Amino acid sequence: MIERIAILGTGLLGTSVGLALRASGFHGSIVGWNRGAAGAQTALAAKAVDAIATDPLQAARESQVVVLALPIYAILDFMEKLSGVLGSGHLVTDVGSTKAQITAAAGRLFNSPEHAAFLPGHPMAGKERGGAALGDAALFRGAAWLFTDDASWQRSAASTALVKDWRQWVVAMGAKTLDLDPARHDELVGWVSHLPQFVSTALSALLQEEIGAAPELKDVGGRALREMTRLGSSPYSMWRDIALTNTEDIQAALLALEERLAHLRENLRTPELRAEFEQANRFRSE
Amino acid sequence: MIERIAILGTGLLGTSVGLALRASGFHGSIVGWNRGAAGAQTALAAKAVDAIATDPLQAARESQVVVLALPIYAILDFMEKLSGVLGSGHLVTDVGSTKAQITAAAGRLFNSPEHAAFLPGHPMAGKERGGAALGDAALFRGAAWLFTDDASWQRSAASTALVKDWRQWVVAMGAKTLDLDPARHDELVGWVSHLPQFVSTALSALLQEEIGAAPELKDVGGRALREMTRLGSSPYSMWRDIALTNTEDIQAALLALEERLAHLRENLRTPELRAEFEQANRFRSE
Repeated sequence: MIERIAILGTGLLGTSVGLALRASGFHGSIVGWNRGAAGAQTALAAKAVDAIATDPLQAARESQVVVLALPIYAILDFMEKLSGVLGSGHLVTDVGSTKAQITAAAGRLFNSPEHAAFLPGHPMAGKERGGAALGDAALFRGAAWLFTDDASWQRSAASTALVKDWRQWVVAMGAKTLDLDPARHDELVGWVSHLPQFVSTALSALLQEEIGAAPELKDVGGRALREMTRLGSSPYSMWRDIALTNTEDIQAALLALEERLAHLRENLRTPELRAEFEQANRFRSE
Repeated sequence: MIERIAILGTGLLGTSVGLALRASGFHGSIVGWNRGAAGAQTALAAKAVDAIATDPLQAARESQVVVLALPIYAILDFMEKLSGVLGSGHLVTDVGSTKAQITAAAGRLFNSPEHAAFLPGHPMAGKERGGAALGDAALFRGAAWLFTDDASWQRSAASTALVKDWRQWVVAMGAKTLDLDPARHDELVGWVSHLPQFVSTALSALLQEEIGAAPELKDVGGRALREMTRLGSSPYSMWRDIALTNTEDIQAALLALEERLAHLRENLRTPELRAEFEQANRFRSE
């Protein structure tokens, strides 16, 4: 039923959505728009999109589904612009990493019978660096794709059908969908996604200070160190909007980890160390 | 020149040493001893060892090289026992994760012309769980193998030749050798090995507390969370002796990370966040 898709933002996620749609049998048109021309060309060359749009609002109007694959504040900006130009035959969805502000804007600007539908989405997939060149048709395979839809929203029949169809494409791309309340979503990703990122950033920054002057020592750590610092390569640009839109949840998670590390530090020589290891062991074994 | 090796402790590392020696062309005899019979049988079945010894001291006496692949305090215990029964035609080496106490004992109990040589060693390779069944001939390929030898030690010509030959086998197993002062070794591994482990343990224990009751949420985090919590599966038994023999270095590293996390937490909305990300980015890019 969905035959025309516009992907606004052909970075890692936008390009991967285009590639994954094709790999799962989507035969309709996919038009891409990107703020930087190079990223759009890379996505086009990879056949993630069929064509490059120069006017994102026109491309959105001419599509049934608009995928906003941009940083969070850029998504919020586009939501304002798109709500004025799209109507009840359109679905807008996004891949933003925090959902409280986006879901609130979706209720305000979309999701009435005369407006377009907006389905807030968040694929839990990515890489430590972005860009169309890293686009990957298999990126969403086995990954969770979270939605923070609101059952109280009143959509047109056409928009409702698009929402249902888009969810099926998400499953076709290999993802496992899960519906969450937006506040619970942001709290949860604060623990399972944002906290691991900020820990890896802090660990990498600290180790750069301690042994950065002796690069040969970086290799000494082996696989364990490589894994624990891989996310430390993630650029500020990928995390700025997340830090700004989920500040309190991230602060709570960081504070809890600081306290946990202090507890370990104070108990390296007591039986409490065993209890902490056993609690940690349960996380992967249960 | 080395033709008879005894491996005392056929867990993950001991079994992997036997397998790696065979894979790199060692054709002499390898006898194994293990405190638990099952681990010895597994190593024998994997052909990591040719035979199982029932008396470790006798096996050591009948070998030229004795590899102590045991927890740190068990290594220290065996060093006491072996120094009385071995002589100048023997080399003892180990794979223990901290080196200050072991290197001090090596100077006291070995490394005089009439005693056996002791070469303190530490391959920077492992897995999050131990056991002979996980033994891997490729475990040391590309890994650092650290030594904390002491140039002031006076060894017999026979022992000196064994030390040289063993270093060549370590290289043949695919490892990159690096010589460090023992105190510097313990400080360095405090940063690049012990700190990542304790962070992963603390993060896993915390997340188990926060979302352990909803196991379906553990999968939401994807690859990033899996990597950051993989080491959280490591058992207390693998880390107890490390915590007890490198307490101060680990405490210093943990405290520094706590402070770094607090700094991030206080700056999620300031330009300082960019500076931390850029510092972290340098760790992998330089």
